[in-house]
Amino acid sequence: MAATKESPIIFYDLASQENTPWSPNTYKTRLALIHKGLPFRVEYISYPDIAPLMKKLGAPPGSPNSPKFPYTLPVIADPSPEPEGKPIYVSDSWEIAQYLERTYPPPKYPTLFPYDAIAVNYAMTASLGRTAYNALADLAIALIGTNHVLDERGHEYFMRTREEMFGKPLAEVIKEEESKWSTEIRSAWATAGKLLDANGPMDQVGPFVMGKQISDADFRIAGLVLWLRRGEGPEGHRWKELLEWDGGRWGEIWKAVEEMEARSTEV
Amino acid sequence: MAATKESPIIFYDLASQENTPWSPNTYKTRLALIHKGLPFRVEYISYPDIAPLMKKLGAPPGSPNSPKFPYTLPVIADPSPEPEGKPIYVSDSWEIAQYLERTYPPPKYPTLFPYDAIAVNYAMTASLGRTAYNALADLAIALIGTNHVLDERGHEYFMRTREEMFGKPLAEVIKEEESKWSTEIRSAWATAGKLLDANGPMDQVGPFVMGKQISDADFRIAGLVLWLRRGEGPEGHRWKELLEWDGGRWGEIWKAVEEMEARSTEV
Repeated sequence: MAATKESPIIFYDLASQENTPWSPNTYKTRLALIHKGLPFRVEYISYPDIAPLMKKLGAPPGSPNSPKFPYTLPVIADPSPEPEGKPIYVSDSWEIAQYLERTYPPPKYPTLFPYDAIAVNYAMTASLGRTAYNALADLAIALIGTNHVLDERGHEYFMRTREEMFGKPLAEVIKEEESKWSTEIRSAWATAGKLLDANGPMDQVGPFVMGKQISDADFRIAGLVLWLRRGEGPEGHRWKELLEWDGGRWGEIWKAVEEMEARSTEV
Repeated sequence: MAATKESPIIFYDLASQENTPWSPNTYKTRLALIHKGLPFRVEYISYPDIAPLMKKLGAPPGSPNSPKFPYTLPVIADPSPEPEGKPIYVSDSWEIAQYLERTYPPPKYPTLFPYDAIAVNYAMTASLGRTAYNALADLAIALIGTNHVLDERGHEYFMRTREEMFGKPLAEVIKEEESKWSTEIRSAWATAGKLLDANGPMDQVGPFVMGKQISDADFRIAGLVLWLRRGEGPEGHRWKELLEWDGGRWGEIWKAVEEMEARSTEV
């Protein structure tokens, strides 16, 4: 039995003040669910509640090798194929993407991995992780914290754990990272853009990682844009600048994702 | 005018005692030429002659940012489209692969990048570089040196520059690396194998990076097998063991490459 509007996939996302998406990792899963056309209902979880809830549900840890934070989001609960059966819990955005592709395969459901090219798609996601994600992460984390994006309990937890991680106040991290915006951060994204330019001229071959077809690796990019946008707020200037970098490639991807959101399958 | 048997592409490869392929980087280009069905003639160049010859020919350096060794092989000379015109020189295996795909495009010539998925294919080559290549390189280099694979002048140059690079005799490097064969080296290849397993069961989806179709990233793997095989000699045990690792995936790729070699377009 596939997920239906009456019995949708439960998507555990990170809570925030307005309970709207902000996390780059969970956003990949939201977009995968929308792209597949699968009905899903969101449960927003505050940071300190993740581990206790996932243990209670019997969901697997998303980062089993992390000594401090083994339980992470996203997690999905896919309704069991057996009536009255226990749902199938899957954690970690990459595991979830593979699970969805196997369980809701093309051509009935749109593919996350065009041409069954799964491994190369992941290699690109990992490559974007080393360039675009790594360069942006400290700034985005610091903005999410200092601009109090999260719900009260989540915010308290986030500030405490992240300031411990950085060994300094997030306000200081912002100052340091701001000076990197036009240099290190810009340059890391340009490296990613140059790699994607190998596909050929964007106006002929399409702006996406796989050319004309959007795929899982593009959702990594979209998650980063969202992260920065939520961190600095919709009036911020950086996320808008970023959309114009590298021939406007990131803006094209973001536009496609906004169109996906307009036909979201969230119930 | 495309390359013909009478006016083939000139492929500058690294010399060796028998003048047969041994270098992982130039081997990628040899396989790309064969896969495309392009007639090519090989010129074997001894290490100390690379820079002077390439400067004389006006070929671009393959590693322009390397202060010590900017001129590298592979280099190709593609006959000019103009009669009597100067050939087009391209260096660096990745630049050459892109050049060949543009200049000898599918469907007339078999593609190096199925589905025009060029950027993700490169991301996989880079990923294999960080796992399989990096783990094997020191052992392979030390074997090539100590087993005197290269021509006399090339050998002298190779031993001197590589021992300077390692800061110790290559015989010592072999001893150190031998102990890593079943641990670090094995484990790095398993990481690469696990990534490719994401494509699905090999007997159903095919053993190659892109599944059933061989592509440029597979030639990275084949080059590594060749490197080790030439380093320890065809009677060696390691390269044969390696072909059986990870469900026999590397052996399947190597078998396909041997079949390609049997219909080589070398003239």
